Amino acid sequence: MYSFLNNEFLPADKTFVHVSDLAVQRGYGIFDFFKAVNGKVPFLDDYFDRFYRSAEFMQLPVTLSREELKKVVFELVQKNGATNAGIKMVLTGGYSPDGYEIATPNLIITQHALTMPSAKMLEQGVKIITHEFRREMPLVKSINYTTGVWLQRKVKESNAYDVLYHLNGEVSEFPRCNLFVVKADGTLVTPHTHVLEGITRKNILSMQQVTAGKVKLEDVLLAREVFLTSTTKRAVPIVQVNDMRIGTGKPGPVVQQVLEELVRREGLK
Amino acid sequence: MYSFLNNEFLPADKTFVHVSDLAVQRGYGIFDFFKAVNGKVPFLDDYFDRFYRSAEFMQLPVTLSREELKKVVFELVQKNGATNAGIKMVLTGGYSPDGYEIATPNLIITQHALTMPSAKMLEQGVKIITHEFRREMPLVKSINYTTGVWLQRKVKESNAYDVLYHLNGEVSEFPRCNLFVVKADGTLVTPHTHVLEGITRKNILSMQQVTAGKVKLEDVLLAREVFLTSTTKRAVPIVQVNDMRIGTGKPGPVVQQVLEELVRREGLK
Repeated sequence: MYSFLNNEFLPADKTFVHVSDLAVQRGYGIFDFFKAVNGKVPFLDDYFDRFYRSAEFMQLPVTLSREELKKVVFELVQKNGATNAGIKMVLTGGYSPDGYEIATPNLIITQHALTMPSAKMLEQGVKIITHEFRREMPLVKSINYTTGVWLQRKVKESNAYDVLYHLNGEVSEFPRCNLFVVKADGTLVTPHTHVLEGITRKNILSMQQVTAGKVKLEDVLLAREVFLTSTTKRAVPIVQVNDMRIGTGKPGPVVQQVLEELVRREGLK
Repeated sequence: MYSFLNNEFLPADKTFVHVSDLAVQRGYGIFDFFKAVNGKVPFLDDYFDRFYRSAEFMQLPVTLSREELKKVVFELVQKNGATNAGIKMVLTGGYSPDGYEIATPNLIITQHALTMPSAKMLEQGVKIITHEFRREMPLVKSINYTTGVWLQRKVKESNAYDVLYHLNGEVSEFPRCNLFVVKADGTLVTPHTHVLEGITRKNILSMQQVTAGKVKLEDVLLAREVFLTSTTKRAVPIVQVNDMRIGTGKPGPVVQQVLEELVRREGLK
């Protein structure tokens, strides 16, 4: 297996960065993640748009053009002989002489096994917990997951699948997923602000009768259906929030429709 | 020059971590920083207390005991032939197979040149700017400086020395320094909450007539004296906040006294 670092393909287990990198010293960097399915990358331009946007906002120049970067990604997938895989592109703050100033970014591209939600999860739905928190730069796909990683212990101890952030009664997102809610009145909504703009979320928003708006924690607890979305997870039904059962306690029809449409759009059907 | 990684001394320029480290993937890790002065480390136990405390909170086991870690630190300083230097210990989330779960931490110890504030800064004082923000885990010395690093451009463009965080009218800290204010009524105070508990701050708090309490942005603007503190900077007088002059616009007597006492306690006099 190969990875890519700055300008060369390297054996994945020999891809190292110097400890002076601002990711190691200050947790400073951005990334993006997408999946190759049957050798193609659905919605690649959306992921690239976000990657370059995050990089610009975080003052990290990307030396490769979009076309050059695409070429590298497809060459990596080809070299690794994988047609189904997750691809992660990380752009760090670089080797900073004083350990604080942004330097020349390091570009790291790695390939990962795809783990999709199990059939059982989709059939039975999952439990989530909640945590009072809001990310500091939600719109940017920064590498800072301090709170998300730290909460993993609590997620596991609670036998939960993920943790939903909320603040002042308003919910926002999961550490790595977006939230959708079929409210008690039947409307389908996703939080409009303080969230990472997921590509799967964007896709769902372009479907009929979905809006981005304010979502209260109360809306979640009283919802007909709740589900989370991400590139690898697509759409996973949520049937329990903390100790509360949601809706009928079983996955509903809306998440099923959304999931089918997502699969269709990925070109897998 | 040497660095230390996990269990061995390595040439500093050959000290690398694999890109799967959770610091690179998720900005997850903690650190501490202290200075060796004339071959001794003032207040070493305080720094070690904080390092082990941060590590425990962040679920990162330290395999070395305090005595073993101290031995490594002094061996590193000795190997590098430096009696005056900054020492940084970083403990990362380790090589995470799935890029999200905490693994076996990597311990990285590096030595750095000390840059103290210039005589001019101490004589004339510095300008700071303000920014509305509060760190997500202020009590832990996490490596997450996303906002601090990101703000460096604004700090420079403003010809400022540093940036003070505030939220809801209350000030907390600088990205890497604590704040002290001699209020209009003559009392010396430092913010009591939402701050990293600096060792220099702790030292000053043990001096007479200093309290930790709520400090409003207004208190700063109307103060007789304002100064910032840190391990390397000790105490630096602030004479301008954004466009406002503080006090007489010149460093006052309190910061001078505090600085002298800090130097005395470091055993340099």
